[in-house]
Amino acid sequence: MQRVLIIGGGAAGMSAASWIRRLSPDMKVTVLESTQMVSHAPCGVPYFLEGLFDDPNLFMTYEPSFFIEKRGIDLRINTRVKELNIKDRHVTVEIKDKVESIDYDYLILATGSVPITVKNDGTERVYFVHHPAHASELRKALWSLNKIAVIGGGILGIETAEALSVKGKKVVLIHRGKYPLNRMVDEDISSFFLPKMISEIDLRLGEAVLEVRDKGRLVITDKGEYKVDGTVIAIGVRPNSDLVKGQLKLGVYDSIVTNEKMETSEKGVFAAGDVAQSFNLITKQSDWVPYAPVANKMGFVAAFNVSGIEKKFPGVVGTMITKYRETLVGKVGLTSAEATRYNFKIKEALVKHKTRARYYPGSKDIWVKLIANEKDSRILGVEIVGQEEVLGRLDVLAEAIMKGATVEDLFFMENAYLPAVARVWDPLVLAARKIYAGD
Amino acid sequence: MQRVLIIGGGAAGMSAASWIRRLSPDMKVTVLESTQMVSHAPCGVPYFLEGLFDDPNLFMTYEPSFFIEKRGIDLRINTRVKELNIKDRHVTVEIKDKVESIDYDYLILATGSVPITVKNDGTERVYFVHHPAHASELRKALWSLNKIAVIGGGILGIETAEALSVKGKKVVLIHRGKYPLNRMVDEDISSFFLPKMISEIDLRLGEAVLEVRDKGRLVITDKGEYKVDGTVIAIGVRPNSDLVKGQLKLGVYDSIVTNEKMETSEKGVFAAGDVAQSFNLITKQSDWVPYAPVANKMGFVAAFNVSGIEKKFPGVVGTMITKYRETLVGKVGLTSAEATRYNFKIKEALVKHKTRARYYPGSKDIWVKLIANEKDSRILGVEIVGQEEVLGRLDVLAEAIMKGATVEDLFFMENAYLPAVARVWDPLVLAARKIYAGD
Repeated sequence: MQRVLIIGGGAAGMSAASWIRRLSPDMKVTVLESTQMVSHAPCGVPYFLEGLFDDPNLFMTYEPSFFIEKRGIDLRINTRVKELNIKDRHVTVEIKDKVESIDYDYLILATGSVPITVKNDGTERVYFVHHPAHASELRKALWSLNKIAVIGGGILGIETAEALSVKGKKVVLIHRGKYPLNRMVDEDISSFFLPKMISEIDLRLGEAVLEVRDKGRLVITDKGEYKVDGTVIAIGVRPNSDLVKGQLKLGVYDSIVTNEKMETSEKGVFAAGDVAQSFNLITKQSDWVPYAPVANKMGFVAAFNVSGIEKKFPGVVGTMITKYRETLVGKVGLTSAEATRYNFKIKEALVKHKTRARYYPGSKDIWVKLIANEKDSRILGVEIVGQEEVLGRLDVLAEAIMKGATVEDLFFMENAYLPAVARVWDPLVLAARKIYAGD
Repeated sequence: MQRVLIIGGGAAGMSAASWIRRLSPDMKVTVLESTQMVSHAPCGVPYFLEGLFDDPNLFMTYEPSFFIEKRGIDLRINTRVKELNIKDRHVTVEIKDKVESIDYDYLILATGSVPITVKNDGTERVYFVHHPAHASELRKALWSLNKIAVIGGGILGIETAEALSVKGKKVVLIHRGKYPLNRMVDEDISSFFLPKMISEIDLRLGEAVLEVRDKGRLVITDKGEYKVDGTVIAIGVRPNSDLVKGQLKLGVYDSIVTNEKMETSEKGVFAAGDVAQSFNLITKQSDWVPYAPVANKMGFVAAFNVSGIEKKFPGVVGTMITKYRETLVGKVGLTSAEATRYNFKIKEALVKHKTRARYYPGSKDIWVKLIANEKDSRILGVEIVGQEEVLGRLDVLAEAIMKGATVEDLFFMENAYLPAVARVWDPLVLAARKIYAGD
């Protein structure tokens, strides 16, 4: 019987495990997960902090018993990998105080990502919003504080700041960039969500944190000091690839390099999810996209290839979405700033529009910025800010960009139109028209 | 100076007129509109009947004075065409009691559509929900009645029945089809909106109206008779092409045949909007799609070609959307029934899913039915029923089908994911996966 070992029980790992069991009932599938949670969703942690739900089991799509009993997976929770020897196809694990050895025929690395930190003097009141397994203790700790510094104005920082602000905390958000979400959207787009944030959060922009001292109660930046009751560090994550350093080829941010089949530089060894590198379909360069939809699909692809059925992961276009209060902010592909950095000569259009017919109650503002390649009018990216129907419109571009669509293709999209949820001229179509026809 | 004559001041006509003025400031553009309204939106009439707004000027994107003063268009409202002689490039119009002759160099026919009727004995209490110009008198009449028969269970019939039911009227909806919207979605999908309709409207399905008698107060069907206070006939529309019969080549339902430039069988004569035939990109056959987004884009294309800049209208995929109360129902492309009728061998998947993460409050049901070509996995159609983010997901498929996407392309779409508005596995991606991977 062939033995598949999967390290990491998150989205990619459990997706892969379930598919292998289904495709290859004869294979033995072992999953090693260092926490007590599997198929978990870190993206839910801010909503838990906000108090929108209380049962931490809801972080899991399925509980461990489901995978063990219903899917026949040899799932071992609370099991940490001590040593991995890829050449010998061998791993040493630690369960509580016991050490055990496991051999395997196929290996899937799905170890996810870990938070990046800043210099600090201890973990007592220094917090990370990352793994759902620690969400309950994190919430208990943060809810007991009054004034909290959040370091980082990216997706996680914004969502954490929002959650704590809604819970009545005084939040100081310290961000190195010129405006929040600056690695996600262009500055012009930021003006459509920034005023609301400024009115509710003490935003410190263009300010770099040098050190957190006094056990999380003093944040020292290049512009000043902040006395707070505790500090959340949310400046981003990096691939959790330490285990394989020196054993496998690493790429962008030390993510694991794979081919389209998710196979690493070592035959029979696959990587999927946040720990794996991906290929950007727009820039045609290596990229790293640590989000759950990509992770799940990478796990799916790895499972098929382990099972001997060739499937290829086509690559990424870089889809992101977050929200602040009722306003959703998302992007697909490249921002103008990114496109310029990648040496594209671009054409762009910014459209402000409404989400419903002018006579239909409840219409909301929506902004669409579309970026296209000057040479061939191929769409390079879109940024959208609005309160309704943002998600689907982003997905339109995710699919369009993947299929190499031009602004002409988007203009002629036969968009759905119902006065209660749209205008005849959809903002996507208007943005495409601006580039296609000059207005 | 070259003279462009446009007959019809709806979406297609005014879109064409505005673009020609912009592209060819030297051309004289005359628009003849038989009512007092231009750039009007018939799709808003049901919401006006429901009482969601009261100002009939809101039906117009811009009022006539805007087009005349700001855009320099020779717009003539309340002007009916008496006779059109295409060979001689000549039209005779009637304004109040005056008759006038107009010659032109280019002609754009944008005469829209007209309601289909059933046998009836007079117009006194027999109503049509069609032109916004008559919406005020229609509303006054219908609001004064108590029990109203609505004939037709398509989009317009459903929207009218909903509006009148919300206004407290007793509505009998008589529909020849087996279930409402049967020309839009498959029967399995109808079960997700039908129960709500049945609980609020007296639905008579599979029943054909033979005649409306007693000045709209008696509806006689093949199964019985209904005594009501008045009758709304909403069984559909047909191209308003009577004016050109015998002069231009007509196609599907007597819509005007054009090439990709929207030029008819007569050089210099264009057609756009509901009166024009279109080409279906899936069936590769002629089709007829009488909806505003298509009309606007056809008008745009006609304008460019009249101005000597070649643009081509690529064709349609058949996008439709409507709602009943809070439930949106939409489709793009072919239903299974249609696909089978066009001799496609199909694979299909039906997914019931939720719109938000399991831990996020306010999640709604959503159903997606995906239809693909068995041979090459090309997507042929999608049907979606749900309460949020239906529009954008339809648009994903409108663009995907237009670009010839397969279920594999849809599965690997890098969909946006935020727990507040989506699940990691988007219902579109799940439906694609069911066909692509068997589950």
